[in-house]
Amino acid sequence: MKNVDTQREILRFKNGRLERALDTVATEFPVTLKVNGQEWVTMVCTPEYIEDMAVGYLVSERVVRRYEDIRDIWTDEKGGFVHVRTDHLNPYYEQLQNKRYITSCCGMSRQAFVFVNDALAAKKMDGVHVRITVDDCFRLMEALQENAEVFKKTGGVHNAALCDAGGILVSRMDIGRHNALDKIYGYCLKNQVSTKGKILAFSGRISSEILLKTAKIGCEVILSKSAPTTLALESAEELGITTIGFIRGGSMNIYTCPERIAGVAAHAR
Amino acid sequence: MKNVDTQREILRFKNGRLERALDTVATEFPVTLKVNGQEWVTMVCTPEYIEDMAVGYLVSERVVRRYEDIRDIWTDEKGGFVHVRTDHLNPYYEQLQNKRYITSCCGMSRQAFVFVNDALAAKKMDGVHVRITVDDCFRLMEALQENAEVFKKTGGVHNAALCDAGGILVSRMDIGRHNALDKIYGYCLKNQVSTKGKILAFSGRISSEILLKTAKIGCEVILSKSAPTTLALESAEELGITTIGFIRGGSMNIYTCPERIAGVAAHAR
Repeated sequence: MKNVDTQREILRFKNGRLERALDTVATEFPVTLKVNGQEWVTMVCTPEYIEDMAVGYLVSERVVRRYEDIRDIWTDEKGGFVHVRTDHLNPYYEQLQNKRYITSCCGMSRQAFVFVNDALAAKKMDGVHVRITVDDCFRLMEALQENAEVFKKTGGVHNAALCDAGGILVSRMDIGRHNALDKIYGYCLKNQVSTKGKILAFSGRISSEILLKTAKIGCEVILSKSAPTTLALESAEELGITTIGFIRGGSMNIYTCPERIAGVAAHAR
Repeated sequence: MKNVDTQREILRFKNGRLERALDTVATEFPVTLKVNGQEWVTMVCTPEYIEDMAVGYLVSERVVRRYEDIRDIWTDEKGGFVHVRTDHLNPYYEQLQNKRYITSCCGMSRQAFVFVNDALAAKKMDGVHVRITVDDCFRLMEALQENAEVFKKTGGVHNAALCDAGGILVSRMDIGRHNALDKIYGYCLKNQVSTKGKILAFSGRISSEILLKTAKIGCEVILSKSAPTTLALESAEELGITTIGFIRGGSMNIYTCPERIAGVAAHAR
């Protein structure tokens, strides 16, 4: 597999003058997923944990309904392919793929969803299985950033980690925001690591796509040093996910479902 | 149309204690593009300049080959639709959409492309029509950041601007990286603003997708305060685009095609 970063000779302007320098750049690698021999999707990603990413993608997007439905998976590194064999393609997937969720359908009225498949795949949290403190949030974001070696070298990747209140359980990075989460989910599925009661720490903005992926993975809490969007927060409320953003400089914003944070009950609406 | 940002009541932890606060969050709005009555794509975006975005998307992605091929365009704000009528759908588009560019086809050998449509739509720059100085780069990035009002309030959007060496000509922001560029391109197409010899300033990372969009728009130079990826730089070399990243703190990295930067000739390879 290719390296996750590459050295390049560049011109650098610094201290008022130009000089030749060596710079480290994040590798962006296209991987095409073939399902039962058909081109399914091309994911442009950081070339590591590719099969985990494919597994996480297929299950979280409900192309297959569970990991056990994947009969075989193998990688053609040179060509940039991941091949998947399954006898259990989700029959609803192709029919509903990218179909806009406009009216109340399927007996649900979920205003916060853009796509029908998301409304079907994103599970509402069934209670409160994790409690964390404000200090936990600072500590986990700090651990995520300390872990982020390729980011430190290249500035060009996103970092994500599955955590419990004690610390990071598994962390992955990728040039693609959702790929990092797919890699974590694929790892959990393959290694039977439960995501119940776990926390996601993420380096990037919390868009609706990231929030929905969090729900599909089954995490109740998402932490970020960056900003959320309105649609992400509407989905978070609908799905019962705790969203905390702008965790930096000793401060943080608690946007949704504060009941999982110790000592917050008194301040909650 | 909806507001580009929204006030929300949140809990903020600051100076060691929790307090209720009002926070401003970037609006994320789904817009579905319908071409000749068919659902084409759903773009999750910041709700302003929606028709420009649709025009920029359709032409840069070569769904139609030029702005004049769009017979009619209108917006259904409430439903979140942009409707487009055309008698000149590009016949190759659907056939090649998302088709992986694997072997040398179409008589070309363009290793830096992932998708066939990109290899067809991204134009190689036909020379050097703009020269800028290192000082221009700093000044344009500074102007981009000063312009970025919604970013200052929400932290949740990307900013992009079409510039010449004298300053910003048109700037747009969006929660989606490529949407901001589509909005600029759509504006230029509608108002017959030439992109030849122009510069793009961008707040986010330069991925291959952003680099290809730059080429499709027809800009020779892209400036960013952030990092590029390897694939973006390979495309930039192939297409003859000047890529400058990490423009911050009085320093910058010149990655490709330095011949457009004054005084660099002596240092170039």
